[in-house]
Amino acid sequence: MKPSGIITLMTDFGLRDPYVAMIKGVILSINPEAKVIDISHQVSAGSIFQGALLIRETYPYFPPGTVHVAVVDPSVGSDRRLIAVEVDNHFFVGPDNGIFWPILQEHDISKVMHLTEDRYFLPVVSYTFHGREVFAPVSAHLTLGVTLESLGSPIEDPVAIAIPVAREKEGVLYGEIIRVDNFGNLITNIHQQEFEEYLSSAPPVIEIGNLTVKKFGFIFVDVEEGEPLALINSSQLLEIAVNLGRASDYLEKESGEIIGTMVRVRKSGNVL
Amino acid sequence: MKPSGIITLMTDFGLRDPYVAMIKGVILSINPEAKVIDISHQVSAGSIFQGALLIRETYPYFPPGTVHVAVVDPSVGSDRRLIAVEVDNHFFVGPDNGIFWPILQEHDISKVMHLTEDRYFLPVVSYTFHGREVFAPVSAHLTLGVTLESLGSPIEDPVAIAIPVAREKEGVLYGEIIRVDNFGNLITNIHQQEFEEYLSSAPPVIEIGNLTVKKFGFIFVDVEEGEPLALINSSQLLEIAVNLGRASDYLEKESGEIIGTMVRVRKSGNVL
Amino acid sequence: MKPSGIITLMTDFGLRDPYVAMIKGVILSINPEAKVIDISHQVSAGSIFQGALLIRETYPYFPPGTVHVAVVDPSVGSDRRLIAVEVDNHFFVGPDNGIFWPILQEHDISKVMHLTEDRYFLPVVSYTFHGREVFAPVSAHLTLGVTLESLGSPIEDPVAIAIPVAREKEGVLYGEIIRVDNFGNLITNIHQQEFEEYLSSAPPVIEIGNLTVKKFGFIFVDVEEGEPLALINSSQLLEIAVNLGRASDYLEKESGEIIGTMVRVRKSGNVL
Repeated sequence: MKPSGIITLMTDFGLRDPYVAMIKGVILSINPEAKVIDISHQVSAGSIFQGALLIRETYPYFPPGTVHVAVVDPSVGSDRRLIAVEVDNHFFVGPDNGIFWPILQEHDISKVMHLTEDRYFLPVVSYTFHGREVFAPVSAHLTLGVTLESLGSPIEDPVAIAIPVAREKEGVLYGEIIRVDNFGNLITNIHQQEFEEYLSSAPPVIEIGNLTVKKFGFIFVDVEEGEPLALINSSQLLEIAVNLGRASDYLEKESGEIIGTMVRVRKSGNVL
Repeated sequence: MKPSGIITLMTDFGLRDPYVAMIKGVILSINPEAKVIDISHQVSAGSIFQGALLIRETYPYFPPGTVHVAVVDPSVGSDRRLIAVEVDNHFFVGPDNGIFWPILQEHDISKVMHLTEDRYFLPVVSYTFHGREVFAPVSAHLTLGVTLESLGSPIEDPVAIAIPVAREKEGVLYGEIIRVDNFGNLITNIHQQEFEEYLSSAPPVIEIGNLTVKKFGFIFVDVEEGEPLALINSSQLLEIAVNLGRASDYLEKESGEIIGTMVRVRKSGNVL
Repeated sequence: MKPSGIITLMTDFGLRDPYVAMIKGVILSINPEAKVIDISHQVSAGSIFQGALLIRETYPYFPPGTVHVAVVDPSVGSDRRLIAVEVDNHFFVGPDNGIFWPILQEHDISKVMHLTEDRYFLPVVSYTFHGREVFAPVSAHLTLGVTLESLGSPIEDPVAIAIPVAREKEGVLYGEIIRVDNFGNLITNIHQQEFEEYLSSAPPVIEIGNLTVKKFGFIFVDVEEGEPLALINSSQLLEIAVNLGRASDYLEKESGEIIGTMVRVRKSGNVL
């Protein structure tokens, strides 16, 4: 695969500390022509699950041959492996902790390499910053045309993580909230196709905790200001939003406790 | 107009979610040589007014031929138009909701196009993310030399928004606070010229709520630590600051309520 | 020295306001090929000390010939000098307020220029935004090959700031906390070498306020979840961390009061 010259970065480092800039400095020291694009550095600290969904959702918008570096790595320095992956015409570099699992799971063909060739690392590797000393230089070498095969040895058993899926039970479609965005919109794991097959044109009633949403629309202004509605968002997922408001404020939960909240979809007129 | 190859982005998306990165990925998929620069992604959610002033203040520092994408778009998906603008040797791409009005208002000559040529869009356009599916690809095509004229049909009636202006009434100059910056400085809509013409060399007294400022200086250290002063800032606007402190903390208002607060300038010695 | 074409930016401007983008616009107007990389824009407002340590820690990861612009400048517009520095094969541009002192102190050979040649500035220089009007254009000209010598006149007495150093007293090694990172890790000013020489293989006991840490490890997972440990971090400094937790939460202090807190290292078995 021909590299695009683009490297994306996703971490839980935040933007205050020097860590992200160090990674960029290392990359540009090896390939001054690399283009480095931030996906997000505000993944919740140590949340592999959140990072896994974020990179899964974002990578397809980049050109084929892009290298995606993901550093959400609470076990940094332990014996967890470091890997580079080639799948769906993109490269991925990061810890083998499941962060690329949703992408691997969706594609039949992939190559996963255990990073063992330390000639592609920085000369000194610390215990706590493999993003800088391994992932950054490896990603830069990939943009220069170093092949995946030369980075280490293939593995067949990358770490998997559990991805919650929507399921129907006794006539109700159950899902959960997987993200709360900057606007307070509640993104669920219920895909448009599941949603439509379940409803088969019946109008939906959606219940999340003590919030009941009966309006289904296409855009935020389909309801009055301050009123909640359900819609299929631009990633084809069921989302709860409030026109000119924050749906997350309607849940009476601390913001840290919203992810994982159960979402129930019923057909209007159903008896529970 | 020759494109500079630079695209700036201003949104209310924040930096946690994948939305900004998706826009950058789309741009680089069309023009891998484009340079994408963030202006800010922390415009208050849905605040067209705030975004309009921010892009107005920032664009002149970029080279002629730069494309400025502004996505503050609470009515996304409704029948509001999508536009591209050429004015003052810069391009602007965004919703027709007034976000470019302060710039259009200041220039006699401009071209405003309603974006209708969907061959310059992504193949699938969702209801809720026109930034990714329309503004990103259109901006990338502009950097490749696609002309404004080929993007759609000209319109003569872009949406206008009310921009509060300073005015004199019964011997007092009235303005309002239009921005609170990272340092807690209070930026007003009173321009240096209005301020100086009103005062004609009399010393000013400035009143904002219960805060009275009698010191006028040029730099923050012109007053003691913790003391407020008024100055003309680097954008030629009257600004209230506190040396090594936050003027916004002196107002006894919630931070969300400061924008729009009335500012009164009197000549020292005036009787109210 | 051959410029790398890269300019890094470190400021206390935050990311909400247009100030950082204005600097980038000015740079790209002078050198459209410059690569601008953000180090951090979240230095605490006016904290020269924090900025000085941050740039000192980060610059070595960039290629030789990189220009580092640092704008933490609470006395902007006063008679403090503006300088450009060449040291350790890197360029630095900013106010002469000590922000580059830790770097200058560590190298015998350096060139420090007082920026007086205003043909390398923007035509209009305001009182309060020298980052935009002086540092940005000067840094862009450096990437184009303008020599340090042509920017002004050499000075021998750049402003120094006090950098707290670890010291041993009556058998105890004293240091202090110099940074709290995004993960709540407490970074001290005790360098690996000082730490090891002091202990000479005795096990350490580390005391910070009411927190006592007896575990010394290499990686976070060396202790149980929620347990504190001391480690030498990737910058060779003693750091206190909590596995899957925030060490900063254990100090019973407001986050703004943690920097400067005394750190005491004793040899286990020592009587105080």
